[in-house]
Amino acid sequence: MSNALATDFYQLTMMQAFWESGYNPDATFDYFVRKIPLGSYLVVAGLENVVEYIKNLRFDKKDIRFLSKHGFYPDFIDYLREFKFTGDVFAMPEGSIAFQNEPIITVTAPIMEAQLIETYLLNKMNFSTLVATKAARVVQAANGKDIIEFGMRRAHGEGYLEATRAAYVGGCSSSSNVMAGVRYGIPVAGTMAHSFVMSFESEIAAFRAYASVYPDKSIFLVDTYDTIEGTNNAIAVAKELESLGKKLIGVRIDSGDLLSLSKKVRRMLDRANLGYVKIMASGDLNEWRIKDLLDKGAPIDMFGVGTELVTAQPKSALGGIYKLSEIYAGTKNVPKMKITDDAAKMTMPGRKAVWRIVRNGKFDRDIISLANEKIDGVRMLHKVIENGEIIMHKESLDEIRSRLRMDLEALPSRYKELDNAVAYPVELSKKLAKLGEKIKKNMKNALGTRS
Amino acid sequence: MSNALATDFYQLTMMQAFWESGYNPDATFDYFVRKIPLGSYLVVAGLENVVEYIKNLRFDKKDIRFLSKHGFYPDFIDYLREFKFTGDVFAMPEGSIAFQNEPIITVTAPIMEAQLIETYLLNKMNFSTLVATKAARVVQAANGKDIIEFGMRRAHGEGYLEATRAAYVGGCSSSSNVMAGVRYGIPVAGTMAHSFVMSFESEIAAFRAYASVYPDKSIFLVDTYDTIEGTNNAIAVAKELESLGKKLIGVRIDSGDLLSLSKKVRRMLDRANLGYVKIMASGDLNEWRIKDLLDKGAPIDMFGVGTELVTAQPKSALGGIYKLSEIYAGTKNVPKMKITDDAAKMTMPGRKAVWRIVRNGKFDRDIISLANEKIDGVRMLHKVIENGEIIMHKESLDEIRSRLRMDLEALPSRYKELDNAVAYPVELSKKLAKLGEKIKKNMKNALGTRS
Repeated sequence: MSNALATDFYQLTMMQAFWESGYNPDATFDYFVRKIPLGSYLVVAGLENVVEYIKNLRFDKKDIRFLSKHGFYPDFIDYLREFKFTGDVFAMPEGSIAFQNEPIITVTAPIMEAQLIETYLLNKMNFSTLVATKAARVVQAANGKDIIEFGMRRAHGEGYLEATRAAYVGGCSSSSNVMAGVRYGIPVAGTMAHSFVMSFESEIAAFRAYASVYPDKSIFLVDTYDTIEGTNNAIAVAKELESLGKKLIGVRIDSGDLLSLSKKVRRMLDRANLGYVKIMASGDLNEWRIKDLLDKGAPIDMFGVGTELVTAQPKSALGGIYKLSEIYAGTKNVPKMKITDDAAKMTMPGRKAVWRIVRNGKFDRDIISLANEKIDGVRMLHKVIENGEIIMHKESLDEIRSRLRMDLEALPSRYKELDNAVAYPVELSKKLAKLGEKIKKNMKNALGTRS
Repeated sequence: MSNALATDFYQLTMMQAFWESGYNPDATFDYFVRKIPLGSYLVVAGLENVVEYIKNLRFDKKDIRFLSKHGFYPDFIDYLREFKFTGDVFAMPEGSIAFQNEPIITVTAPIMEAQLIETYLLNKMNFSTLVATKAARVVQAANGKDIIEFGMRRAHGEGYLEATRAAYVGGCSSSSNVMAGVRYGIPVAGTMAHSFVMSFESEIAAFRAYASVYPDKSIFLVDTYDTIEGTNNAIAVAKELESLGKKLIGVRIDSGDLLSLSKKVRRMLDRANLGYVKIMASGDLNEWRIKDLLDKGAPIDMFGVGTELVTAQPKSALGGIYKLSEIYAGTKNVPKMKITDDAAKMTMPGRKAVWRIVRNGKFDRDIISLANEKIDGVRMLHKVIENGEIIMHKESLDEIRSRLRMDLEALPSRYKELDNAVAYPVELSKKLAKLGEKIKKNMKNALGTRS
């Protein structure tokens, strides 16, 4: 399936305008995020999708037919028939921690190519980075307890698959989403539904039916009628399993006051010598709720987190943008910068590099420089596509998850607070700052009247 | 591509538990929404996807291989090889207006089948209904002005396509999403990007390049450097187009104070005798912002709405649920109802119908009854699948949009306020209310100790 038309219409009309104008200079675009919606850091995710897309970016017959019918010109369409991406892409690997205003991806290519890929790149990077970041926060709040992602039913349509992958990148242990198991090898997990319990004559009959099929894999949902009665039924069946040499894995509480109920349930299980039976909690959980429960001593061993994780509430969109920073006009590089009425919408000029300064194993600050500068730090942007050829090796999710764990370890805790995290210092190199000032000044002179 | 594994893992483990128990009674499930996130009504969307999914629901070889590797038993897997959905589905058609607690879909099938489809059904209905509802609000606020959906870059990954379809169901005029044009025939539209303007030596050079390719289809983005200067440049090129007998379509303002800028730009255009040149506004718009702009007299002719529309902010998830309401045990129907610690999590028992009472062409109230009751009103749930066969004719998006327009017309305005809309009355028939009371009483008696 071609994804060439998975883009905004204006990318194609602008592309045709460039084509008809005979103007197709090389250009550099930066993907970056001005404002981090929650906390002080981002977890980069979505790159694999972007690289795959660029690799396979061709206009197939169906695409060509559609464009012919929609007013595109034959000469432009002939160009599209032969289209392939020929540029260079630098990117921070998935699982990296990134900060505000830093280029996470830079693309240098003939502008017709660089422009076309904007929409898809933004769609993939914005959403996966959003959810991976949210997941990292939830996982951090759980303080070593497992987070199972449960969100498919509330995820945004077909985005559910990327949501699960990003949640796993961000540190979740497993997912209820079977398709994510098929596609990505992500561990799948689950318990049982209220309807399962209700479909039997009694709760204990439902537990027995389940346990007979999964004698050492069962987690019983105990709140269908009454959590305490449900726990009594779970204990009874756990004892029956013991008599067969089997062990109940756990019980799940999905409603009510999770703090007091988990404490009661834990006491009941322990009094029944079922110390090994775990407690899973679910139901409208998020990082704050989980932290609060654990801070108050809730004896919960694992959390099922759905809606708020896969929709990254309360900030359900990442406003990452893709901005022109340089044009290669003839033999001259012309750094570009958007200077507009809205100061927050300005951009940084030139082709850039990002450096991470590490002191005593901890992240100290980042520096954005011009690409040809050499700063004494860790280079964050790596070439993943060169002249249109993929040179990045495909990373496993394990590698990506390890990178994130190391990065989070190296990030001082003041930047990781769930609330009121300190903004991580991202500086501009002197050369970059100077270039920006120069362009602003020239622009003001050119426009004359503006302050 | 099989979508059979686009589900939660527990649907499959419960299914196997039913299978191994030899217990697979017919069951009825209701899809409904307890609490409408914004306003008082929902716009039903997503049904086409659900029906297609059910129609094609088969386990292919790859699915079978995956399940065999994940501990499912050979006899159950043999059953899955032959699996098809054999039940009945009733639904409100897309574009219908629905209210809190009303079954929007009811499914009656052997419980193994009815349970399996839960996750996919919820994923599709929740998201499309969420966005269609949001779109209807945005369109209402625009009071006849066109809304162009611009959201792909901020939509949740592959959910972008359903987002565009739902936005169009909800009344948007067009979309930037080309793929939605390919798949659904939705009109596609667009203007130009800041990067296009910046890639040329000057703004006016960019406008000229674009206009030479689209002499009567151009909308110039005027805020790249300065909206007033940009408008002067747009006017100059519009005059050049006039000299060729062509007309500029419009200008777009994407930043700054849209109210004062749109007024200034309108005055400038009018003074230049360009009354026909339209103004499009974009940039973090939503229903409240649009209403405010129009209330204050902003001369804006069309709005581009992206992020907040396709992610349905500020409530980015619809908590629609799928609950067991009846089990057909042997020859007896056993109505089921969830009675739990959390009153808000209770459900309504029995197989149900929904009726809309219309007075003088206006919606007066809805009544939820038992399926075998006959109420003097409009029946809202229609059979779309019978014994596993699709009997619904596939509706065009035009039909669906017309239905919504009629429904919104018939909904009194107090239910359509953007804020503080009155809750629409949804009543239970006497028989349904009585059944619920009876089950609650029996349950309390059975549990003994509970109040």
